[in-house]
Amino acid sequence: MMLNVYLSGEIHTDWRAEIEAACEGLDVAFSAPVTDHAASDDCGVDILGAEENKYWHDHKGAMVNAIRTRKGIADADVVVVRFGEKYKQWNAAFDAGYAAALGKSLIILQQPEHDHALKEVDAAALAMCRTPAQVAQILRYVLTGALPG
Amino acid sequence: MMLNVYLSGEIHTDWRAEIEAACEGLDVAFSAPVTDHAASDDCGVDILGAEENKYWHDHKGAMVNAIRTRKGIADADVVVVRFGEKYKQWNAAFDAGYAAALGKSLIILQQPEHDHALKEVDAAALAMCRTPAQVAQILRYVLTGALPG
Amino acid sequence: MMLNVYLSGEIHTDWRAEIEAACEGLDVAFSAPVTDHAASDDCGVDILGAEENKYWHDHKGAMVNAIRTRKGIADADVVVVRFGEKYKQWNAAFDAGYAAALGKSLIILQQPEHDHALKEVDAAALAMCRTPAQVAQILRYVLTGALPG
Amino acid sequence: MMLNVYLSGEIHTDWRAEIEAACEGLDVAFSAPVTDHAASDDCGVDILGAEENKYWHDHKGAMVNAIRTRKGIADADVVVVRFGEKYKQWNAAFDAGYAAALGKSLIILQQPEHDHALKEVDAAALAMCRTPAQVAQILRYVLTGALPG
Amino acid sequence: MMLNVYLSGEIHTDWRAEIEAACEGLDVAFSAPVTDHAASDDCGVDILGAEENKYWHDHKGAMVNAIRTRKGIADADVVVVRFGEKYKQWNAAFDAGYAAALGKSLIILQQPEHDHALKEVDAAALAMCRTPAQVAQILRYVLTGALPG
Amino acid sequence: MMLNVYLSGEIHTDWRAEIEAACEGLDVAFSAPVTDHAASDDCGVDILGAEENKYWHDHKGAMVNAIRTRKGIADADVVVVRFGEKYKQWNAAFDAGYAAALGKSLIILQQPEHDHALKEVDAAALAMCRTPAQVAQILRYVLTGALPG
Amino acid sequence: MMLNVYLSGEIHTDWRAEIEAACEGLDVAFSAPVTDHAASDDCGVDILGAEENKYWHDHKGAMVNAIRTRKGIADADVVVVRFGEKYKQWNAAFDAGYAAALGKSLIILQQPEHDHALKEVDAAALAMCRTPAQVAQILRYVLTGALPG
Amino acid sequence: MMLNVYLSGEIHTDWRAEIEAACEGLDVAFSAPVTDHAASDDCGVDILGAEENKYWHDHKGAMVNAIRTRKGIADADVVVVRFGEKYKQWNAAFDAGYAAALGKSLIILQQPEHDHALKEVDAAALAMCRTPAQVAQILRYVLTGALPG
Repeated sequence: MMLNVYLSGEIHTDWRAEIEAACEGLDVAFSAPVTDHAASDDCGVDILGAEENKYWHDHKGAMVNAIRTRKGIADADVVVVRFGEKYKQWNAAFDAGYAAALGKSLIILQQPEHDHALKEVDAAALAMCRTPAQVAQILRYVLTGALPG
Repeated sequence: MMLNVYLSGEIHTDWRAEIEAACEGLDVAFSAPVTDHAASDDCGVDILGAEENKYWHDHKGAMVNAIRTRKGIADADVVVVRFGEKYKQWNAAFDAGYAAALGKSLIILQQPEHDHALKEVDAAALAMCRTPAQVAQILRYVLTGALPG
Repeated sequence: MMLNVYLSGEIHTDWRAEIEAACEGLDVAFSAPVTDHAASDDCGVDILGAEENKYWHDHKGAMVNAIRTRKGIADADVVVVRFGEKYKQWNAAFDAGYAAALGKSLIILQQPEHDHALKEVDAAALAMCRTPAQVAQILRYVLTGALPG
Repeated sequence: MMLNVYLSGEIHTDWRAEIEAACEGLDVAFSAPVTDHAASDDCGVDILGAEENKYWHDHKGAMVNAIRTRKGIADADVVVVRFGEKYKQWNAAFDAGYAAALGKSLIILQQPEHDHALKEVDAAALAMCRTPAQVAQILRYVLTGALPG
Repeated sequence: MMLNVYLSGEIHTDWRAEIEAACEGLDVAFSAPVTDHAASDDCGVDILGAEENKYWHDHKGAMVNAIRTRKGIADADVVVVRFGEKYKQWNAAFDAGYAAALGKSLIILQQPEHDHALKEVDAAALAMCRTPAQVAQILRYVLTGALPG
Repeated sequence: MMLNVYLSGEIHTDWRAEIEAACEGLDVAFSAPVTDHAASDDCGVDILGAEENKYWHDHKGAMVNAIRTRKGIADADVVVVRFGEKYKQWNAAFDAGYAAALGKSLIILQQPEHDHALKEVDAAALAMCRTPAQVAQILRYVLTGALPG
Repeated sequence: MMLNVYLSGEIHTDWRAEIEAACEGLDVAFSAPVTDHAASDDCGVDILGAEENKYWHDHKGAMVNAIRTRKGIADADVVVVRFGEKYKQWNAAFDAGYAAALGKSLIILQQPEHDHALKEVDAAALAMCRTPAQVAQILRYVLTGALPG
Repeated sequence: MMLNVYLSGEIHTDWRAEIEAACEGLDVAFSAPVTDHAASDDCGVDILGAEENKYWHDHKGAMVNAIRTRKGIADADVVVVRFGEKYKQWNAAFDAGYAAALGKSLIILQQPEHDHALKEVDAAALAMCRTPAQVAQILRYVLTGALPG
């Protein structure tokens, strides 16, 4: 058994690298959105031409990024969505809903202060983690049956 | 042609009633989540028994509410998701993602200050509206071909 | 909103009638397997001819009953599965798995002594109830937003 | 042609090893749930934190195990479900129903005393076997056309 | 519960009328192909213009008939396929395969001399009947739980 | 049997009315795009606000119209696509491809001078007609078995 | 591009070998049912135990063979079905219907005397061939664009 | 991450080669229809025998080409459709609709004079490009996050 894992959500800390490091040696293929914030915001207009209206500037970029996001989620066995401390992060919740509707195994990574606000998202998940290490431990257990410690 | 329309998201203003009133005479069947905030929060424990741990209290409620939410979205031709001024509203974004993955026609109702944060959600929608009246005008046009004014 | 509800599982007590009575006035259409035990066991051979081998006797009946069971589950929005005190009840667990794979909202009705044995089944459900009254309260809440008491 | 085969059900005897040994040389990839009973029961709390309530202890574990189970069944061409002599084994019947709804080729491995109780499960299967050797013979025949003896 | 039943296959005897008469009072909606042999053969050229080549003559007719056949099977809960004594009846077997792939409940109506030739078709069915009366008895049992006499 | 029929394509002649008149008395529910050319072009900006850029003007309108088009095709049993003498009519061909991928029964209505250019579209259809009368004759035959004349 | 091709139908001549030889050098993976007639008839009872009743003897075999057939068709891009001169060949027509419902590209290989009887089957196909060489030419053209001669 | 990209539409310029060259080093597998115009027109009759009627000549060819087209689109993550300056190009629009209905990420490559005529097609796309270089830049960004310049 091998797992395709898509790492969605917060892009300002190194949680993806932490999970990947902790999964060393496991048969996991990780994918993720483009995590360079500026590139992600401007990809639409940089490639397809400038827009005067900021709404269409954003729109073109969001649609180009959707090519990668949809591919990542569609191919995934497990979708991990991390909610950070800041920002609205509606794209993270959108990805969670998208993955849930496709029947993907969903893992949410969040802090306790968001428990109430995320209750509908957690209710669609198979695991709610507090740390990247826990996500990695789940992936290790799922693939090998080995528990931590 | 008749339309099933699910009205997801913000529950603190009367935007649903506004849309419904403005659609008078159209062949539209509206559905929505339970919009009584307290009932929605406590339905799990009120029916299925108290939980000491707040996380499971919320979890039981969110799962009971999911029975209604999933039915509403699954049966809908059009899913309207409104983002209000306050709160995280991750359940709204989750519903939008869920509806998008099922191929539903998505209409987003939001204010300009959220345009950037909602760009991925808008990119999956067929219309982005500023007012409930616009949503109703779209539904009227879709069903009858009549434009406002 | 109206709900199609399939009532699967135990056929020796009147739990179905209890739920139906408690849902009086709600827009719910109930369906269920044939609950006459003898008819259910013998329908295959009674209609299609006797079998010397008990295995094929059972097989013919189980396949005829499957026409009804599959229709009931396929049309349902909510599948309620009750596990009673006695018997193996593998058909109940089979129906639960079948419904889960189709993405139906699943409600399990069971007693505490089976909690451990049913943990995988419960993990696929949106509610675990102890009494038929709780099932009816959930259906009432889902349809009307009204909580008990 | 190669086959992905998921081996579900009873975890107290070495039937999986028997089948795998008897399939030596065939192009079959086997998968299975975690068969370490203690690990399987405690994986949820060991990784995600203790629960006072036994129900949630079990629930967290069952959901983590579901990540593996669903992946195994989703990827399988053939799902073999073994029912042993003891225990309720509702998870085995649940897996059978889940696999049937997904249209997987189902093979049931059971003893005659369970024939009547398993008639609905058998009715959804393409083969009912008494021994692991028979399961292996079927896989060999399906892949090579060779019959035993 | 009500059933949509598509009656496919042999068109030279009145088996459809027999089943329909025997289902009097049941909540069943029957559909069927056009059973006027000449109309069925010539509908393509009669409506769309003559063809010199008999192959295209037949082709145009078969495609027009497919509009009705596909609709009938797609809407059906149960597909009954009758194999008569004469002719190749490949369209009947084709319909059976088509219905099986869509997961429809399949009932085969045939005589014993065809048992061996129809074994693959029967293996996909939930019932194999010898008489129209048996088909009606199954439909009555499925809808009401009542067994014959 | 009743048929849902979506009438896609050319909007400058009265072919839809011709078909509907010729189907008088049949159990057919017709749907179609908005056929008021000006309304169809401007619906986006009329409802959702003006755009300086003609591309986005068109885009907003096309997306609002898609709500109706997708609903019409999704609900249809039969999709009729008419190609007229003028214009590019890429939306007609797009609808034909969309309907084909969903497995809808497709009828093409076109003139001989377009036969070569439409060969891929025709190859996905169950009938190629020259006149609205032929379309109506097909619908009448499919529903009643009656042939013209 | 590579193609998975399933070769269904007649098992008494060497048409499969002819096609495979003529496809030498192409990126095609062929699969087929077990073509040893005796093994195919007896696989059920040889592995799973004798049956007194010939119907169940056949039934067990047909179900074991279905494991291979369904896998072959499900994995195929192209399904070729050959109808020979003799026998009822209902399993061939069943496979054609099954493949058509799954949206597989269907190629029929048959002689002119069966044109009328196979018109519904041909109407679901993308090519009707008279010789194995033609089937191979189609596969070569599809993969390389090269035409014969 | 790797991408399967199907390049549909115009076959008279070397836009496909341009994109492929500009994607050198990326993990992309390209596929396309047969782009030899004469072979594409005549493949049906060259392999399967001449037709007197030009309509059937075209029809046979279009159906053989459909084997390749459907495979290419079904396997693709991204479908690029180019509309050139000349011809009706209804097959290009048909492919776009087909891909959209399957939920493929769609990129349209077109010139400004077609913007209005293609507005429905563009509305289903995630990007509208003016040059093959832009298509390649999108694919590079999607796979690596790198922007041009």
